Amino acid sequence: MAGIFQRASKLRTALRCLSLRCSLSSTAGTRLSPADPYGPFLSCLSSVPSVVSARGLHAGADGPEPSPAAAPERRSFSRVTPEDLAFFRKVLPGRTITDPDLLESSNVDWLRSVRGSSEVLLRPQTTEEVSQILSYCNSRNLAINTQGGNTGLVSGSVPVYDEIILSTALMNNVLSFDSISGILTCQAGCVLENLSLYLEDRDYIMPLDLGSKGSCHIGGNVATNAGGLRLLRYGSLHGTVLGVEVVLADGRVLDCLTTLRKDNTGYDLKHLFIGSEGTLGVITAVSVLCPRKPKSVNVVFLGCETFEQLLQTFQLCRGMLGEILSAFEFLDSECMRLLNTHLKISNPISDCPFYVVIETSGSDATHDGEKLHNFLEEAMTSSFIADGTVATEDSKIKALWSLRERVTEALTHEGYTYKYDVSLPVDRIYQMVTDMREHLGDRAKSVVGYGHVGDGNLHLNITSPAKDAALLAAIEPFVYEWTAGCQGSISAEHGLGLKKRNYIYYSKPSQAVALMGNIKAMLDPKGILNPYKTLPDNLQ
Amino acid sequence: MAGIFQRASKLRTALRCLSLRCSLSSTAGTRLSPADPYGPFLSCLSSVPSVVSARGLHAGADGPEPSPAAAPERRSFSRVTPEDLAFFRKVLPGRTITDPDLLESSNVDWLRSVRGSSEVLLRPQTTEEVSQILSYCNSRNLAINTQGGNTGLVSGSVPVYDEIILSTALMNNVLSFDSISGILTCQAGCVLENLSLYLEDRDYIMPLDLGSKGSCHIGGNVATNAGGLRLLRYGSLHGTVLGVEVVLADGRVLDCLTTLRKDNTGYDLKHLFIGSEGTLGVITAVSVLCPRKPKSVNVVFLGCETFEQLLQTFQLCRGMLGEILSAFEFLDSECMRLLNTHLKISNPISDCPFYVVIETSGSDATHDGEKLHNFLEEAMTSSFIADGTVATEDSKIKALWSLRERVTEALTHEGYTYKYDVSLPVDRIYQMVTDMREHLGDRAKSVVGYGHVGDGNLHLNITSPAKDAALLAAIEPFVYEWTAGCQGSISAEHGLGLKKRNYIYYSKPSQAVALMGNIKAMLDPKGILNPYKTLPDNLQ
Repeated sequence: MAGIFQRASKLRTALRCLSLRCSLSSTAGTRLSPADPYGPFLSCLSSVPSVVSARGLHAGADGPEPSPAAAPERRSFSRVTPEDLAFFRKVLPGRTITDPDLLESSNVDWLRSVRGSSEVLLRPQTTEEVSQILSYCNSRNLAINTQGGNTGLVSGSVPVYDEIILSTALMNNVLSFDSISGILTCQAGCVLENLSLYLEDRDYIMPLDLGSKGSCHIGGNVATNAGGLRLLRYGSLHGTVLGVEVVLADGRVLDCLTTLRKDNTGYDLKHLFIGSEGTLGVITAVSVLCPRKPKSVNVVFLGCETFEQLLQTFQLCRGMLGEILSAFEFLDSECMRLLNTHLKISNPISDCPFYVVIETSGSDATHDGEKLHNFLEEAMTSSFIADGTVATEDSKIKALWSLRERVTEALTHEGYTYKYDVSLPVDRIYQMVTDMREHLGDRAKSVVGYGHVGDGNLHLNITSPAKDAALLAAIEPFVYEWTAGCQGSISAEHGLGLKKRNYIYYSKPSQAVALMGNIKAMLDPKGILNPYKTLPDNLQ
Repeated sequence: MAGIFQRASKLRTALRCLSLRCSLSSTAGTRLSPADPYGPFLSCLSSVPSVVSARGLHAGADGPEPSPAAAPERRSFSRVTPEDLAFFRKVLPGRTITDPDLLESSNVDWLRSVRGSSEVLLRPQTTEEVSQILSYCNSRNLAINTQGGNTGLVSGSVPVYDEIILSTALMNNVLSFDSISGILTCQAGCVLENLSLYLEDRDYIMPLDLGSKGSCHIGGNVATNAGGLRLLRYGSLHGTVLGVEVVLADGRVLDCLTTLRKDNTGYDLKHLFIGSEGTLGVITAVSVLCPRKPKSVNVVFLGCETFEQLLQTFQLCRGMLGEILSAFEFLDSECMRLLNTHLKISNPISDCPFYVVIETSGSDATHDGEKLHNFLEEAMTSSFIADGTVATEDSKIKALWSLRERVTEALTHEGYTYKYDVSLPVDRIYQMVTDMREHLGDRAKSVVGYGHVGDGNLHLNITSPAKDAALLAAIEPFVYEWTAGCQGSISAEHGLGLKKRNYIYYSKPSQAVALMGNIKAMLDPKGILNPYKTLPDNLQ
């Protein structure tokens, strides 16, 4: 006991601070920056992806490759004619873009890993305009790539060949907000951060928060079933999205834009479109159930000697923090080394093999502080944690979060990075990192693990001085087979897009994939919506 | 101020008790009985529905009518032959039931309102057996009615004609439970209450609780997207069900029985089956994300002078109770009159036009008590509540809940009852009751409203001395048009089943219903699964 407290001097001090703070509420209402691994990049993104940010990322080291490199041959869609352009200009005067310079940023994905060759960007403002465009394109057999903030990580949001880019950027109006129920209805092109700001003024928050919030669109979030930081607390978009309005491939408008928490009248069609990556319809509006803004937020940064102790900490934390727990994230010592080396971020506690970021969000600062204090005392008494520090000020809260958020940025300085985003049973999360390290031996420069423990979501990153075909061959399919071996998901939150579509069978049985194909054929018989994405090439 | 406290003497006393209790935790771990309006009946149900409980309910006054009375003509399914029975007996030795006495309870719905004429009841134990049965029935064009606990309220769980009844009753094994993640995987026929008891031993709870928990099956809950008491806190089954295993109409097994919180690999097919009422496939197993068991539960019963004040109380409560609020239910003074008159239950506070039951569930009894105390003081100071009482003991908690739970039972003594279950924008909930009262004038004996304010879910009940065609004509379609007029749902949590299938257009646009028909045709081209249910007769 005494030994623990001697070792964990910072934590002892922090506990005293927390005890003191329990009688205050100075940080009530504090809002945190997101903890998405891609946070620091995406939130800096304006319209053109940063070259620096893409450097060294998987497939992006030498600039974006043409998308077809990763796709099957161009399907027999029509090509855009002057008559087509005349039609688009009539429907969207001044919002039919053909200038190659203006199209550049929409043709390249955020990671700068692939490049399409679209020559037309359409910017509708209304559902009716989207309907007219799709009806026309369907009749003309013209392929469409719907694009929100273009912040996706699997090349799902850019054209592969010459698909027409349909941007939701000008569909950015809040349609209604009910301050009693907390239900927001808005167009698909609203930027997530703008919605968050809109709601904060009304004492609510969005149920999701992502590093890309400054750029991503809510329609894109819903279309890709975005996860992010708040999933542990508020659940997935399948639970918080109450309704969607969708334009189908043939231009029909499907109005499922209900604002009801309960509605058991027939099949709940909206779920088909949540996570379908724009392949089944174009989401034009959504309604979302929003939680009340927490009055109190706390963050602690802890060190654990083993991953087993980290899991014990998680269990204890769920029991003792209960309803106020809003994040439980981890990073390993390799991540800390990269933060130290490349970003000069120092470790605020003593060196440990594993680190944890815990966030609480609640309605009473005193109660939250007491719960956190009791949990930390118990965790120390039980020897689950070796050291730790508690954030009691806004700046320190942000500093602690940055340890988790900036790992991806640190990785970009390490060389070429092979990135994986997998879901695993919580108790197997780190075994994958250990096994991969052993499997690769000296072939990899480093193998690092971090992610959302609370959601069973590991971000596995493997670095190399440069692109290395032999290394890739050693990683894949090993990583997918390992994931499949424990019934995990080979894409936890990033989706399949162009890059991972053919790996779907590692996580879904063929019966399920075949049924997905049937649904695609039913809703988009000509296959004009976001072709070459999500579904595998060998689908029949 | 002083006036309020003088009037609310019971509440003042209660607040003192609560303050005292804040230093204790005597009721930690208290579990509450459910607040579903049908609670007292369904939880008494063993296998045969109680005649008493059904007396006076809509369409049940004179005993169950043949189901076809409400259905279109029998479709051209095959009839069961001796060869079919021989096949079933080979697959299910000793579990192919043809004794009419044993079939009786499975042919009649719980409300005793309709009666099918099935002559075969099949009781499989495994998914493989279900697969063999469906494959055979599909090839033979034999219709199937899948039945869980047969506790539904829209006659969705009983045959209409001679459909074969496929019972999940013997598929009642827990398959796995992960004590770190709280993820339960079990067969579809597990009784909800048994799962709750299993989990309580492991410090978890099911994310749903229903009055029918003693009889209903988890597979039926998922197939009907059951709502219930905990929805306000833990959300709908679309959020908490992580995976399902489904046998399709042709016998193929669709394995979506994932136990992952995050999985973005293709379309999330499980949602098609949640709430599809057995018309798209037979759910054979589910995996569910279970919340930790709350350490502290409190209940208060309050009176409000106006519905506007009740809504203000709800708003205040959401802000001040925040993350510990687990139920916000209401009943009107007519409900209280029925409780007094028929069940001799006395009002524990002074007479008010509206009453509220608020439940909190949290991880710290002291904190929860303090939050509740502060909320009640503020609500009184703001004159939102006129009187109230706080439950500090288990017996009193149950007594307060019974005021909400036993309204349905009280209604059965009032004569013939026309029952409606609608979702509305929260601020319109009671306007429907007021408008209906005005609309019906002296034609109705009483018009009462109660339900789940937190979910925007009203249970509207209209009583009459006896069945009254003129009264029914005055109620319908008025009630559906009123609901549609504010974009509500004509079935919030009960589903459509046989009884409400043709009213679907009041809540869903024709495009959506047509798409539902396409999905049905894709998954069950012969229409053998639960025919005459959910989808309207005029669907093509």
